[in-house]
Amino acid sequence: MIDRERFPIDPWRLVETRFDEDDLGVTETVFATGNGFIGMRADYPEGRHAHEHGTYINGFHETWPIQHAESAYGFAEVGQTIVNVPDAKIMRVYVDDEPMSIDLAEMTEYERSLDFRDASQNRRIRWVTPSGKEVLLESSRLISFADRHLAVLQMKVTVLNADAPVVINCQIINRQDGEDVYGGRPAAARKTSGKPDPRKAERIAERVLVPQEYWQVGNRSTLSYRTASSGMTLAVVADHTIETENPYESRGLIEPDIAKNVFRVEAKAGVPVTVTKYVSYHTSRGVPAAELIDRGRRTLDRSTSTSADEHRARQRAWLDDFWDRSDVRIAGHDSLQQATRWGLLQVAMASARADGWGVPAKGMTGSGYSGHYFWDTDVYVLPFLDYTSPLWARNALRMRAGMLPAARRRAAQMSEGGALIPWRTINGEEASAYYAAGTAQYHINADVAYALVKYVLATDDIAFMAKEGVDLLVETARLWSTLGFWRETSFHIHGVTGPDEYTTVVNDNLFTNVMARFNLRAAAQVVRDMAERAPIEYRAMVDRLGLSSDEPERWERQGHAMHIPYSEEAGIHPQDALFLERELWDLENTPVSQRPLLLHFHPLVIYRFQVLKQADVVLAEFLQGSYFSQEEKLADFEYYDPLTTGDSTLSGVAQAVMAAEVGYQDLALEYFEHSLFVDLADLHGNASDGVHIAAAGGAWMALVCGFAGMRDYGGVLTFDPRLPVEWPELAFPLTWHGTRLDITLHREELIVAVRPGGDVDEVPFGVRGESFTARAGERVVVPLADQGPVKPGRPAMRRGERDDGTRPGAIVPPSTDVLAIIAEEVDAGAVLQDIDE
Amino acid sequence: MIDRERFPIDPWRLVETRFDEDDLGVTETVFATGNGFIGMRADYPEGRHAHEHGTYINGFHETWPIQHAESAYGFAEVGQTIVNVPDAKIMRVYVDDEPMSIDLAEMTEYERSLDFRDASQNRRIRWVTPSGKEVLLESSRLISFADRHLAVLQMKVTVLNADAPVVINCQIINRQDGEDVYGGRPAAARKTSGKPDPRKAERIAERVLVPQEYWQVGNRSTLSYRTASSGMTLAVVADHTIETENPYESRGLIEPDIAKNVFRVEAKAGVPVTVTKYVSYHTSRGVPAAELIDRGRRTLDRSTSTSADEHRARQRAWLDDFWDRSDVRIAGHDSLQQATRWGLLQVAMASARADGWGVPAKGMTGSGYSGHYFWDTDVYVLPFLDYTSPLWARNALRMRAGMLPAARRRAAQMSEGGALIPWRTINGEEASAYYAAGTAQYHINADVAYALVKYVLATDDIAFMAKEGVDLLVETARLWSTLGFWRETSFHIHGVTGPDEYTTVVNDNLFTNVMARFNLRAAAQVVRDMAERAPIEYRAMVDRLGLSSDEPERWERQGHAMHIPYSEEAGIHPQDALFLERELWDLENTPVSQRPLLLHFHPLVIYRFQVLKQADVVLAEFLQGSYFSQEEKLADFEYYDPLTTGDSTLSGVAQAVMAAEVGYQDLALEYFEHSLFVDLADLHGNASDGVHIAAAGGAWMALVCGFAGMRDYGGVLTFDPRLPVEWPELAFPLTWHGTRLDITLHREELIVAVRPGGDVDEVPFGVRGESFTARAGERVVVPLADQGPVKPGRPAMRRGERDDGTRPGAIVPPSTDVLAIIAEEVDAGAVLQDIDE
Repeated sequence: MIDRERFPIDPWRLVETRFDEDDLGVTETVFATGNGFIGMRADYPEGRHAHEHGTYINGFHETWPIQHAESAYGFAEVGQTIVNVPDAKIMRVYVDDEPMSIDLAEMTEYERSLDFRDASQNRRIRWVTPSGKEVLLESSRLISFADRHLAVLQMKVTVLNADAPVVINCQIINRQDGEDVYGGRPAAARKTSGKPDPRKAERIAERVLVPQEYWQVGNRSTLSYRTASSGMTLAVVADHTIETENPYESRGLIEPDIAKNVFRVEAKAGVPVTVTKYVSYHTSRGVPAAELIDRGRRTLDRSTSTSADEHRARQRAWLDDFWDRSDVRIAGHDSLQQATRWGLLQVAMASARADGWGVPAKGMTGSGYSGHYFWDTDVYVLPFLDYTSPLWARNALRMRAGMLPAARRRAAQMSEGGALIPWRTINGEEASAYYAAGTAQYHINADVAYALVKYVLATDDIAFMAKEGVDLLVETARLWSTLGFWRETSFHIHGVTGPDEYTTVVNDNLFTNVMARFNLRAAAQVVRDMAERAPIEYRAMVDRLGLSSDEPERWERQGHAMHIPYSEEAGIHPQDALFLERELWDLENTPVSQRPLLLHFHPLVIYRFQVLKQADVVLAEFLQGSYFSQEEKLADFEYYDPLTTGDSTLSGVAQAVMAAEVGYQDLALEYFEHSLFVDLADLHGNASDGVHIAAAGGAWMALVCGFAGMRDYGGVLTFDPRLPVEWPELAFPLTWHGTRLDITLHREELIVAVRPGGDVDEVPFGVRGESFTARAGERVVVPLADQGPVKPGRPAMRRGERDDGTRPGAIVPPSTDVLAIIAEEVDAGAVLQDIDE
Repeated sequence: MIDRERFPIDPWRLVETRFDEDDLGVTETVFATGNGFIGMRADYPEGRHAHEHGTYINGFHETWPIQHAESAYGFAEVGQTIVNVPDAKIMRVYVDDEPMSIDLAEMTEYERSLDFRDASQNRRIRWVTPSGKEVLLESSRLISFADRHLAVLQMKVTVLNADAPVVINCQIINRQDGEDVYGGRPAAARKTSGKPDPRKAERIAERVLVPQEYWQVGNRSTLSYRTASSGMTLAVVADHTIETENPYESRGLIEPDIAKNVFRVEAKAGVPVTVTKYVSYHTSRGVPAAELIDRGRRTLDRSTSTSADEHRARQRAWLDDFWDRSDVRIAGHDSLQQATRWGLLQVAMASARADGWGVPAKGMTGSGYSGHYFWDTDVYVLPFLDYTSPLWARNALRMRAGMLPAARRRAAQMSEGGALIPWRTINGEEASAYYAAGTAQYHINADVAYALVKYVLATDDIAFMAKEGVDLLVETARLWSTLGFWRETSFHIHGVTGPDEYTTVVNDNLFTNVMARFNLRAAAQVVRDMAERAPIEYRAMVDRLGLSSDEPERWERQGHAMHIPYSEEAGIHPQDALFLERELWDLENTPVSQRPLLLHFHPLVIYRFQVLKQADVVLAEFLQGSYFSQEEKLADFEYYDPLTTGDSTLSGVAQAVMAAEVGYQDLALEYFEHSLFVDLADLHGNASDGVHIAAAGGAWMALVCGFAGMRDYGGVLTFDPRLPVEWPELAFPLTWHGTRLDITLHREELIVAVRPGGDVDEVPFGVRGESFTARAGERVVVPLADQGPVKPGRPAMRRGERDDGTRPGAIVPPSTDVLAIIAEEVDAGAVLQDIDE
């Protein structure tokens, strides 16, 4: 899977020991650094030979009119694409005026690493120049968690065996959204894509960044821009310090799209030169660029007096705290341990300092999915944050609340009440241009409501719910209330798409209905509770939202009557009203060359079959598991698992958790590992577009909810462990109601310890139906008789009597011979009666 | 409806008596002329003040890459748009060097007409110049049916009351697809459309027509072009003659995009000047433009010696023959008579000389629907042609057969066998960019097969079927054979869209299944008959198509077992498997301001409801009426009619025919009149985009199949008349198996007369279950007891107990109070328990 000679296992670092140009895109992604605001891909400081030179600022996007080949009322009109901002990573090195060029250089030593303890990216190269000089290059990049706008980059050069002129050329280049106007286009831009792939970012043809003020004073340079269409502003300010005992001089150059700070050094053998580049990025929805430059200057004024080492130490301390509350330890499996920590760090780097923005599907590690926010955040990322860094979860929910005005407009445009949260967005407007797998995914409304309630249950952050969250709950519930309709005594939702994008625009999608039910009932419950227990906030909310007194009752009635499709005959929950009417897609016999299906079959073809891009019913039975029996979960898992392609990286997580719950424990491990290594081993072939953040967050769910069997239905922590056979121990902390727990799972016991000093002193929890209470400073040891049911292998596709599994184009003969009874009278009977005339 | 003062009734002409700038677009359309190859909108010879200066050549199109906002495998990639070719209509008149400007001129007389007898457009204006000169301008345009490439335009100027210098400035301008590079943009291009309207043509931003050779010799000018992308070529050659007793001189000018032939005349009072402009258009898929110029010169060499009057006389003779075999006479109703003849002429002008091309949805009268061919031709236009001008029908079917190679490729791309005929196309490739209402309309395959079989049944053209038609039948059947699938003993077709575009991508659409059944069985039958009766053609066909021996049996088995949805409970045929599960759209209470629905609601919203853009089940029960009982037809008509918006102009025809059949005779008349006047009264507000040719052809069906009750199931002519109460007589000819019949319908009798000299001497027919035979030279008078069942008014929407009709956004309360039994346990129960802390 992974070349372990090149990428050796290290539980606290991702390490590369050999340069390879073939997978530049993947390594740029997996070694990327970020803090949830700034993200830098791991392209080399030499500034060439990149798959995609990438620096992204969360939320900093350009808009453009979506051109529909055939438009219709209500189609999304404004595209949004995250902008590849000016690249400040460049620190080119010349020795004897010869450039260090990573692809040509003779290197006797090469190591690049991402350190999970301080989120720094480090590189150490020993370069032998053509004239025989041995040069040690040590460089690092660090994007500060503590100071949201700051990156510290360093290049240390030592000519080991001779004196030599050394030049370190620090640049900021505006590549115009990925294209290098000063020479060379990155590999990603050159590559002509043969097939349409909706997962790639849009490219905008026109100039995106319009230069504003730019200047250079001493070693400080600044460039600033305004986006041509969205009107956002950006300033990047860089300052440089040099430390060396060699004589040197510095030069500069500034133009609208490039800034250079060049250090020319007369290096003595063995005497190092260290240049530290402090970079500050500030963005705004519209403040003048000059104001952003001022902010950047202040950031640097405060930062440059601190050495790179000291910044690193501070970052380490910051992350020590993160790991203390977040680290999941898998004893005896360093490869899994390494990948797990890498994934948790990815989530931190995608969300920690998002502050007012969301968590893009790829974090800030690439331009995939155009930097948009999807349900990935709410369903796959927030659970981890709820229990480790609740403040970040809260910020992500506030982002959703802030976009309510746009969501209200969208609901009205879609002829519904309340708010319709966009399927994909940066600025709050729907940006999905293909409604069948976009706007039709109304379930995002319930996903956000679900995430909100889960957050409040885990944190007890009542104030947030009462002041801001309730608006989200009420407005999302209102949408369901008008979207659904009554048929006799049950409530139905038609014409929506569930999580599985291989069937679209269906009636009574189980996932949607189950989640909408939750949304409706939770809204009713919260509103009622507020009326009783927080009358002041309640009255303010009623005024703010124009809540009428009969609404909560209506929501509850609708939620209670929600139609949940079930087939007595098949003994399973159909994914939607018609799902079982579809033909079975024979996935077992579909060649790898035709995967993923979406790149080889027209949507109309895929939609006709029972075949899943990703878990749908199975995910619903994880998120809303208390509404389904064990037997139902088992039957549904066994039915859907063989029909699930996993063409979406979101699928493996739900499959892992539910495989563990129903007893397919080997399979659970397989799905977990698939999610865990989706980028590190580039399992979907598109890691070069950026890290799949939801898979990274999902891996935590697979560990904690899958193997430790943790659930929190109704806010109560329960455990039903499924420790993999070869794992001696799984251990992790949880933060619950402001109190830190440490969970340790062995085959024979589950240990819950409560650290003192938290907000609550007692933590109730359940294990397999039994209730326990852990007290601060104590540990509760719960003996385990086993690790749950064990089923071997994987479920086989159920080929009923009704139908043989087929793939498109295959023809299935009827079981009975009906030819004998064909009526004689055919309309065309007379056509050829005279043909022999 | 129509301002009869401005547009007085004339049974053989469409007449306009007053210039009005407000509805330029509509009058340009309804006064347009054409011959099925060349089409000229009725913009004025002065060349200004047009809604859309339009000249179109059938099939002459540009291609362009379709940009999908979010693409996927198999989406149509190449757009096709009919090109607005260089405008040869311009013959500007100047008196005293003052231009005649239609919008400013003081006119003491104005008449414009389209003469149905010779398809000429004529204008007579008496213009008083600012200096008091009275000028008579008589102009005409005629596009020859006999000579496919020829148009003859004439301008006659007489200064009545004084001597004056007169200039007649004849031009050909290449306006670059509608934009006038020599000044002024037409109204249509200026107009910024507020809402997306998929019915408009695409505009291509780049230059479409690349100039090739151009020259001028004497009064002859030529321009020629090659399209930038599709590589098609076009030459327009014009020659001019002048007839006058006044002294004159002629001048010329030629540039790549303009040719001028100017005649300067010293006109004496009362002495006329007549300039005749002979224009020839030739196009090709790729022959060099120079070769097309040669062809154009030959056309003109042959034509210019014939006077305009003589051309007119020839055209009249040609059309006399057309009217003799085509005219439908409605006694005592000149308004209907006028509109009916106008419509029949439209079909002739759209199809007569299409020769190898198809019949565009708007003919060549405008750029609406981009000049594409749809099922309109096969289902709405061909029945008229089958029975009046079978050669034109045959040509249209050969066009479909010629596109089989592309249709086979498309089927393979869509994972099916056989051929998939594109939903919309010019060059044979699918050009529909919105698959839900495009590619998903697989029914076009059966529509074409149906049209083919109907043609052969009406004409007895066995040779065409055996040599070419059978390929279409077999390949279309093969598609159904792989698209459908078996479920127990019935055969299903999933994931398709029927004619009604207000529900899309459904399972077992009744129309599709019924028509596919016909297609499958007809193919099996024809292949079997060929094997027996035309063994040589059969063997050639088997080789050509690789037909395996078990295919016909399989088709018949599948056709026989085709699932036809029926609801015992509702007593009707659901439009598709799930149709009755949808909410009812309360059409009666939807304000006019929200019509048509497609411009005011997102497709997802519309798709959720029982609401129809156009007849679907009702159309199936017309086309395949022998498979449905009278009771079924009545029940279905009564159910669907109140749910049908008629937002498609295709709807009224089927509703008229079936309303007549089931007894809603007033309603039948209403729907007929709607179809008849859809353009003349601009009932859909888009007549300016071109004539709705299918509505024009459909009006013939409403008359012949609706009011005369003609059917031809299995090739047998039957009549079950429904003469409207106030109509004393309806009479029309039919051509059947090469023999001309004259049908005359009175309230008391139906008369069938067979003209002598036809291919067959005996014509069997049925009237209300009784069989008759009419012999050549004889007439059979069948007495009629009545004109069928009569039901008053229109059916009301059936509001069942199950559901109240709702519109989007309306909320229907449940009939029972389920609140009382709501379970206490709600997942969010614990959320706010501590809110008062």
